[in-house]
Amino acid sequence: MGSVVTVADVERLPGLNTLGVSMSRVDYAPWGGTNPPHSHQHATEILFVAEGTLQVGFVTTSGRHITRAVPKGGLFVFPRGMMHYERSVGEAPAVAISAFDSQLPGTQRLGEAMFGAAPGVPTDVLARALQTDGGVVESIRAKFQPK
Amino acid sequence: MGSVVTVADVERLPGLNTLGVSMSRVDYAPWGGTNPPHSHQHATEILFVAEGTLQVGFVTTSGRHITRAVPKGGLFVFPRGMMHYERSVGEAPAVAISAFDSQLPGTQRLGEAMFGAAPGVPTDVLARALQTDGGVVESIRAKFQPK
Amino acid sequence: MGSVVTVADVERLPGLNTLGVSMSRVDYAPWGGTNPPHSHQHATEILFVAEGTLQVGFVTTSGRHITRAVPKGGLFVFPRGMMHYERSVGEAPAVAISAFDSQLPGTQRLGEAMFGAAPGVPTDVLARALQTDGGVVESIRAKFQPK
Amino acid sequence: MGSVVTVADVERLPGLNTLGVSMSRVDYAPWGGTNPPHSHQHATEILFVAEGTLQVGFVTTSGRHITRAVPKGGLFVFPRGMMHYERSVGEAPAVAISAFDSQLPGTQRLGEAMFGAAPGVPTDVLARALQTDGGVVESIRAKFQPK
Amino acid sequence: MGSVVTVADVERLPGLNTLGVSMSRVDYAPWGGTNPPHSHQHATEILFVAEGTLQVGFVTTSGRHITRAVPKGGLFVFPRGMMHYERSVGEAPAVAISAFDSQLPGTQRLGEAMFGAAPGVPTDVLARALQTDGGVVESIRAKFQPK
Amino acid sequence: MGSVVTVADVERLPGLNTLGVSMSRVDYAPWGGTNPPHSHQHATEILFVAEGTLQVGFVTTSGRHITRAVPKGGLFVFPRGMMHYERSVGEAPAVAISAFDSQLPGTQRLGEAMFGAAPGVPTDVLARALQTDGGVVESIRAKFQPK
Repeated sequence: MGSVVTVADVERLPGLNTLGVSMSRVDYAPWGGTNPPHSHQHATEILFVAEGTLQVGFVTTSGRHITRAVPKGGLFVFPRGMMHYERSVGEAPAVAISAFDSQLPGTQRLGEAMFGAAPGVPTDVLARALQTDGGVVESIRAKFQPK
Repeated sequence: MGSVVTVADVERLPGLNTLGVSMSRVDYAPWGGTNPPHSHQHATEILFVAEGTLQVGFVTTSGRHITRAVPKGGLFVFPRGMMHYERSVGEAPAVAISAFDSQLPGTQRLGEAMFGAAPGVPTDVLARALQTDGGVVESIRAKFQPK
Repeated sequence: MGSVVTVADVERLPGLNTLGVSMSRVDYAPWGGTNPPHSHQHATEILFVAEGTLQVGFVTTSGRHITRAVPKGGLFVFPRGMMHYERSVGEAPAVAISAFDSQLPGTQRLGEAMFGAAPGVPTDVLARALQTDGGVVESIRAKFQPK
Repeated sequence: MGSVVTVADVERLPGLNTLGVSMSRVDYAPWGGTNPPHSHQHATEILFVAEGTLQVGFVTTSGRHITRAVPKGGLFVFPRGMMHYERSVGEAPAVAISAFDSQLPGTQRLGEAMFGAAPGVPTDVLARALQTDGGVVESIRAKFQPK
Repeated sequence: MGSVVTVADVERLPGLNTLGVSMSRVDYAPWGGTNPPHSHQHATEILFVAEGTLQVGFVTTSGRHITRAVPKGGLFVFPRGMMHYERSVGEAPAVAISAFDSQLPGTQRLGEAMFGAAPGVPTDVLARALQTDGGVVESIRAKFQPK
Repeated sequence: MGSVVTVADVERLPGLNTLGVSMSRVDYAPWGGTNPPHSHQHATEILFVAEGTLQVGFVTTSGRHITRAVPKGGLFVFPRGMMHYERSVGEAPAVAISAFDSQLPGTQRLGEAMFGAAPGVPTDVLARALQTDGGVVESIRAKFQPK
């Protein structure tokens, strides 16, 4: 993906229990390192760009894609449960520090939820989701390692 | 998709304001009528099968796919913000009555969020999400009507 | 009473724990089958009329009685903690599917809370509540089976 | 009733808005002055006996009647939405100071909700609630002043 | 200090657990008996003056000091987490009954938090807080009994 | 103080409204730059050390002082409403990125709340808070600029 996410939530830091906050750090490769589309079930995310420049975006429930370039020192917010992503758009590696208003934000990557779940989500369900056919679904699914 | 969703949330019924609940009805065509993978940003959903039989499923944040066949009269719960779907698996049309613990659940269909958003989510972001290439992404996107 | 309530809350379905939703189904006899005045301590209720026609009503804290006839396919909401009731007003049996924004709504029927509690609520307290005398209170209480 | 309730909620004290708390004072006549069965839609109540002795009680959702004599200086709690009452059981007038975890507790007296609502709750609904007949219902209702 | 606080929170009354309310009583010596500056981490406080007259005050986050004289029978509210105090300003002893919208309000007296904590807060940190020097800090700290 | 706080809350960024999160950045001078004792009325804080090393501490409601040295890349949490502070303990300037689970955390510095409020908090109230005399109080207050 070109990104590495380091999570500090209550599963890694039990001391966060009952405190209702957590953090993560994401390191992005230069020129396109991407934290792919995902959502957090329980938390709004506030992201601070510590190094580099990120293009960030989320898609609202009415299908509008909100996107910005956020330079070093800037911040952005992803509302609870909404699909969002970030990618590095600069020459240097980028680093983001994100905080969440939950000790267990719950992260669901859209690609993995659809194609990497175990047991597998039925092919025809995914074909309808992507308005494609079963062959395309199976060819995509072949790349994912089921958990 | 083979399904029709009729929503009774605060945008359609302003009287629901401040009450914190809403409902929707889904009608499914027989044999495979599908309400494709989606999540609700603000609400847990409790679904009652009023007619027919539904296969229902959701994917947890650890990638586990929980799925059941729910006959007429049965119920099932989809936790807040988690990807889920239903499809009819019987000979007769199916009907579900779903309730939400929010007057505005906020629904995001995964396929449409990725491929139908406007302006479009960058091709390479989607390619990474699906671990595929730009050609596949563009061929899928061509089927979606941007909003 | 002419009604049967089937409850799906966390006491019957432990899997609802932490999910914050529950449901119940009520079957009403035709022409007057009644779910008598009650309130839910922890939940707002959203009711869907699956069969028949119901007259529904609740009384606000300022003493206003809000009532409607709700046909098959209609819905209605009873705010948290407010006295409400439903009764069938059609020729055919009625069925309602109700959902609650709590896994344990907590139901208190007004008649039973006053006259069926054990040990009994003092007669003079009930006489003042109904602005009547102890004889009337005792004659009503005689019909209730203490729990 | 033999009691006078002085309420300090957000309708009387607009400055309480957003603060989430309110208070009331109840003065009880000696020997039986009663604050008759009622519930608070939005608040748990904590009651302090400032003068005299009160018998207090509430009825749980399983029909159990919890009752205590609370002397001057004692306190008691009535859980949100549960029917409760207090009455003076001493020779001297009693005074209670009650606080609520809502700026607008919402009070519903059971007798008035059933018999004093306007327009009137149908006679047969009340008859079923009290397991009595329409004549008894109408004789009780005649004592209430509709609002 | 000239005041005695009697607390009824969930640590003293386990039965308050899950109920979300608590109370305390404060007795003030006449002419200046003081409940010194403190805040409640988890609760807004609503205070009723049962005897005497109190001067009450709190300081907002913008540094405004809101203060009133509250006679017997009056009430006042201290918002969650804000520094506040009360002192008797009459000839007779004063008594306040305070209620909280938490079963465990969490009380932090500002003087004790700074000077009575164990192990001690560094001298230079306190010196900066009070814009003074280490000698003044140490002379104040000498009066406090570390816990 | 040797520190500069840059706040990104809903008063500076109206777009944070309803999102329930905010951030701030603190820059500390080397060797002792201090963010003096303060509390946040509405928020728990999660702090990330972006540069340098910080000594951080908070005092619990039972008077225990919890303190740690947090190096670059480490994090720490200050529970809602509790007095806390940070100071740089390294040779280089330090930088912290803090996030809050409120769009308006509400910050109250203990020194300023006591000595910088306008109108002034009564001298004897502050003298009791610090267990000192009026002369010490007035000498401290003279350093503060009332707002």
